[in-house]
Amino acid sequence: MEHSIDIDIEWGDCDPARIVFYPNYFAWFDKGTRHLFRSAGLDWPALLEEYGVIGLPIVDARAEFVGPCWFGDTMTLTSKIAEVRKKSLVVTHEGVKDGKVVVKGSEIRAWTRRHPDDPARLQAVTIPDALRERLG
Amino acid sequence: MEHSIDIDIEWGDCDPARIVFYPNYFAWFDKGTRHLFRSAGLDWPALLEEYGVIGLPIVDARAEFVGPCWFGDTMTLTSKIAEVRKKSLVVTHEGVKDGKVVVKGSEIRAWTRRHPDDPARLQAVTIPDALRERLG
Amino acid sequence: MEHSIDIDIEWGDCDPARIVFYPNYFAWFDKGTRHLFRSAGLDWPALLEEYGVIGLPIVDARAEFVGPCWFGDTMTLTSKIAEVRKKSLVVTHEGVKDGKVVVKGSEIRAWTRRHPDDPARLQAVTIPDALRERLG
Amino acid sequence: MEHSIDIDIEWGDCDPARIVFYPNYFAWFDKGTRHLFRSAGLDWPALLEEYGVIGLPIVDARAEFVGPCWFGDTMTLTSKIAEVRKKSLVVTHEGVKDGKVVVKGSEIRAWTRRHPDDPARLQAVTIPDALRERLG
Repeated sequence: MEHSIDIDIEWGDCDPARIVFYPNYFAWFDKGTRHLFRSAGLDWPALLEEYGVIGLPIVDARAEFVGPCWFGDTMTLTSKIAEVRKKSLVVTHEGVKDGKVVVKGSEIRAWTRRHPDDPARLQAVTIPDALRERLG
Repeated sequence: MEHSIDIDIEWGDCDPARIVFYPNYFAWFDKGTRHLFRSAGLDWPALLEEYGVIGLPIVDARAEFVGPCWFGDTMTLTSKIAEVRKKSLVVTHEGVKDGKVVVKGSEIRAWTRRHPDDPARLQAVTIPDALRERLG
Repeated sequence: MEHSIDIDIEWGDCDPARIVFYPNYFAWFDKGTRHLFRSAGLDWPALLEEYGVIGLPIVDARAEFVGPCWFGDTMTLTSKIAEVRKKSLVVTHEGVKDGKVVVKGSEIRAWTRRHPDDPARLQAVTIPDALRERLG
Repeated sequence: MEHSIDIDIEWGDCDPARIVFYPNYFAWFDKGTRHLFRSAGLDWPALLEEYGVIGLPIVDARAEFVGPCWFGDTMTLTSKIAEVRKKSLVVTHEGVKDGKVVVKGSEIRAWTRRHPDDPARLQAVTIPDALRERLG
């Protein structure tokens, strides 16, 4: 299961070196993941409510920056569910500009609810089978 | 060489799950790196001008999220130069809240100028010895 | 009632013109408001829970940008409760760098809860007297 | 001259109240202005280079927030050149969701270069006639 979105590189996304301030790539990974789910009919707000989870917080995120994106560029970001584990899933991301890969990354996200005994704690829980199938 | 800064977790840093939106941790890593340099007397704006580089763009960034930070928390972020390579350096970061590690990460940053033949390209160059010593 | 905080202008706060990307000033206004409340012993997370409100959403925000801030600058931001109305309050902000005003702004914020009949709607409610006195 | 873009409200755009963290609206105003220029064939990076300006820094920005946007919403943002003055221009913005206005705002932007005697200072300069005509 994969999905692509186009990212316009805006003025405010770039830093004094005129290239993207790198944390923004992770914000786009997050956006890519949401749109990937949505493309599978899994609308995130509805999903959270249906399952009583708080979201899919990140356990691990990484990115390799292969080439720069400048203000005014458009990058196509392709996001893919690479693996569905018991309580988490791995999403990979690849950004391409003018036919060349500029960024590659991954996120590990846990299916998470508030701890029933202590709402200040978070608790990863088993991904429901119905959801697992749709993430196929 | 290491340096610590305190990060107040603000309302706007947090997402609907009420925890930090994860790309912000990378923005704090970037801030931590700049303050680490500054603590060694290496003020970034002056440095860029002196050496004619555009900055220290990221080649690789990763983070492991061990526990959540909530709106209103304060996190102490310790940044350290872990390694100085020929044209790049490795900075590690560790965030601690209430005595517990909440995030660990690293950045590989290249000492970079615009390509002399094509300003639209970037080029990693050798870190000057004088700078290398001060990053010691 | 007023309170000042120091804002370090970070690399990632600045745009390709090397000056602050202007929406960040509003994020600092938001931060200034929270720290203003905190300086009066009104810790925001506790406040939201105590009164069952969702926060103090913005009804109106404006800023006049008098001079630029560059990467590496420090700006002192002074936030003040200018007026407490029935269901909202006016906070003014002034940023000073090297003794000169660089930004002036204001926010109107409503004391807001979810509508009891429809959680998708928001509803401004009367600011409790006890809170009004502390904001005095 | 006006132009509309669609803004997807992402998870990371929203705060613990589950609505958009308000400074993001100003980032979208900035994006709207750039796309408005681009729709008139005025590509911003080329424009800056052609005229030797650093951009169109903000002199004044304001917004009135009429209704909330939630995570998962789509807002259509219409940006319009309302007035072209000697050295600045006024851009107005209106965001509509589900047929209802949710935000209205304006920016005053100055046509700005670095001061020829002191690159640390900015200087508003007269908008060239050729550009003025295209902004019609």
